[in-house]
Amino acid sequence: MKEKGSRAERELVHKFYDTYPWIALRAPGSGSTPLPSPDVLATNTKRYLAIECKSIKSKQKTFKPEEIEQLLEFSKRFGAEPWIGIKFNHKGWFFIKPEEIKQTKQNNYSITLNLVEEKGIKFEKLIQ
Amino acid sequence: MKEKGSRAERELVHKFYDTYPWIALRAPGSGSTPLPSPDVLATNTKRYLAIECKSIKSKQKTFKPEEIEQLLEFSKRFGAEPWIGIKFNHKGWFFIKPEEIKQTKQNNYSITLNLVEEKGIKFEKLIQ
Repeated sequence: MKEKGSRAERELVHKFYDTYPWIALRAPGSGSTPLPSPDVLATNTKRYLAIECKSIKSKQKTFKPEEIEQLLEFSKRFGAEPWIGIKFNHKGWFFIKPEEIKQTKQNNYSITLNLVEEKGIKFEKLIQ
Repeated sequence: MKEKGSRAERELVHKFYDTYPWIALRAPGSGSTPLPSPDVLATNTKRYLAIECKSIKSKQKTFKPEEIEQLLEFSKRFGAEPWIGIKFNHKGWFFIKPEEIKQTKQNNYSITLNLVEEKGIKFEKLIQ
């Protein structure tokens, strides 16, 4: 699952790199440092996007509030826009703002295909 | 040597993180993607620094022109200042601009302790 996530991140970095003047880099997984950093950081030198990536096989994925909190903290200090990048099998990439994701009763966040199709945007719109 | 380099990079990321409002992240080694990315990217949201890190045990280290070229290419597209960050044993960190490093007859670049002490700046000055 981790390897699948890395592959998705590399693919996203390439998408930015192939879309001049955008460029992106991957930051290492949270395991290697206790400091917050997003999976991918992209820029066209005007906008900076901090992107937490999720590769989702089924129609739903739950994740912990710390991931969103760290993304928001990093983005604020970095001067970047926080985004969640979600790759659903056979549906490609969607991008959604953290505030669009509702918390469950256990305070976790839940991303569903429905939510993403309703509130998310595609890559081409993200970089407009 | 790779592990030593990673440790130095992590240490540098922490130095930025502990110096508000600076923040930094590590990008993975060049092995994981063919696209150029620096070892460390730091910002105070006004300046962006792309830093290629070198941890040097002896008094001299040679490296290939590709490393400098990739740093310059990335920095230009990212809107970042290119820097070489060098940690000499027992001497701490120095930062030097790529154009200060002379090429050898084989087109490689050579960093010496003498060069770094003459042309390099310390962390406190880098972030001023």
